Amino acid sequence: MNIGVIGLGSVGLFVASQLSESHNVTGYCRRDRQRQSILKNGILVDQKPFHIDVELVENIKKHDLLIICVKQPHIDNLLPVLKEVSETTTFLFLQNGLGHIEKVSVELKNILVGTCDYGISKLEDHSISLKGAGLIRIASVADNNDIAIRTANQLSRDVINVEFASNLSQVLHEKLIVNSVINPLTALFEVKNGEILTNDYLKDIAHQLSHEAALAMKIDSNHAWSLVQKVASQTKENHSSMLKDIQQNKQTEIDYINGFILKQSQETLPSHSLIYQLIKAKENI
Amino acid sequence: MNIGVIGLGSVGLFVASQLSESHNVTGYCRRDRQRQSILKNGILVDQKPFHIDVELVENIKKHDLLIICVKQPHIDNLLPVLKEVSETTTFLFLQNGLGHIEKVSVELKNILVGTCDYGISKLEDHSISLKGAGLIRIASVADNNDIAIRTANQLSRDVINVEFASNLSQVLHEKLIVNSVINPLTALFEVKNGEILTNDYLKDIAHQLSHEAALAMKIDSNHAWSLVQKVASQTKENHSSMLKDIQQNKQTEIDYINGFILKQSQETLPSHSLIYQLIKAKENI
Repeated sequence: MNIGVIGLGSVGLFVASQLSESHNVTGYCRRDRQRQSILKNGILVDQKPFHIDVELVENIKKHDLLIICVKQPHIDNLLPVLKEVSETTTFLFLQNGLGHIEKVSVELKNILVGTCDYGISKLEDHSISLKGAGLIRIASVADNNDIAIRTANQLSRDVINVEFASNLSQVLHEKLIVNSVINPLTALFEVKNGEILTNDYLKDIAHQLSHEAALAMKIDSNHAWSLVQKVASQTKENHSSMLKDIQQNKQTEIDYINGFILKQSQETLPSHSLIYQLIKAKENI
Repeated sequence: MNIGVIGLGSVGLFVASQLSESHNVTGYCRRDRQRQSILKNGILVDQKPFHIDVELVENIKKHDLLIICVKQPHIDNLLPVLKEVSETTTFLFLQNGLGHIEKVSVELKNILVGTCDYGISKLEDHSISLKGAGLIRIASVADNNDIAIRTANQLSRDVINVEFASNLSQVLHEKLIVNSVINPLTALFEVKNGEILTNDYLKDIAHQLSHEAALAMKIDSNHAWSLVQKVASQTKENHSSMLKDIQQNKQTEIDYINGFILKQSQETLPSHSLIYQLIKAKENI
């Protein structure tokens, strides 16, 4: 397949490198410095090089499949570009939150969404390290199950594990709940994911957040909490994406994660409300 | 008057030094190293020396007035000692929170409580710096207004400003509300007091906390918020005591401030509940 990967952060670099062994892959980034760096060195995954084409986002070409790995705040700027590409392109969105899906569905056809739970550390512009095995689950937004199943089959390889998920909302909502608990707490205290389970007070707060999010997303609360604990435990040595954003003085995805949950909820969610404001405060300190 | 000052942190050093000009003052501390340091150098207030007697707390003697400046968590250990001192001693408690007063009232007679809003930085064991003028307000716990008025008059001097406050609960509750907002927020984000007013999100959270605390303490919410803003503005360059405790890996007074408000309240206070847990989490990170 002819695949474009937009956004060469940790997930984008990982996906682009792994798919380049069986597909024709072009990566798209915003900074020419990153482009040059990847063209020169390839993408290094734990030191193993993978060579792909790299272009700046403004030079986007037609592809059978476009995998969008930019962070939510950048999707707004990207939409006009994506609309121009092609009627026949399939779009796969791999983001942490859900805030963008409604807007994207109005503008584009053939949309798939996916979750990626690989633990990936970005070391340099062209270099990542993979921490343990993971899974990418993809699903269709409209009734495009056929496309989702076919795409999952085409993408899944030895190193990258891609599965079709029949229950879109369940998969996405579960991911959203996990992110809405682990991300802001680890960002607020600047700790690794595992701290959520080892610090008793943090664990209580995490439990509260998990319960409120499950309520809002209409998912069983015990199931949600066991998922949060499982992911926190599996990624205990990782720094969450929100913590990295805070440390790098970047805008976080809080609006697309906890902000989305707050907007969706019919109940008041006092813990999520305050955590949302605390992260906003921290972004501005 | 023969005055003992127990606890030689910033407030204790300030009070002991200022009163030593007109009274016979003995300071009490826990560490012999601090005792030696003060005996050798005197108490330096912005480099000006004041010489007082210093003893270890276990060697406490009888005094007309004992001013207790230790932090709330240490009062439990101190109570048996205080009970032994004298039936005729007047006790003046100068703490940030209120959690100890009920317990103290059962065990001791002649109790006064006070608030100290001087901004004082402790530089060394025997050295402090005073940031601007302030006020100590004292009031009686039982119906000892006479003692409170007399004590205020005896203590007030050129440099130290001591006033009798007829409305005990108002004074203490106002102080408590201000501390319950400024202390945990500055400790959580490790920022100076003024950040509460300059960071818009932090200001919103501060407003919420102020409103909930006013509700719990049955004080007008607008009045409480204007007080919080006034103190945050007057002490904008200061680090709160809770922030200092966090930075020095000490136990904070959260149980005696926000914990007390939560216990007293007949309403649920979602913001104070979460902030309380967040500080507890931070103490344990």
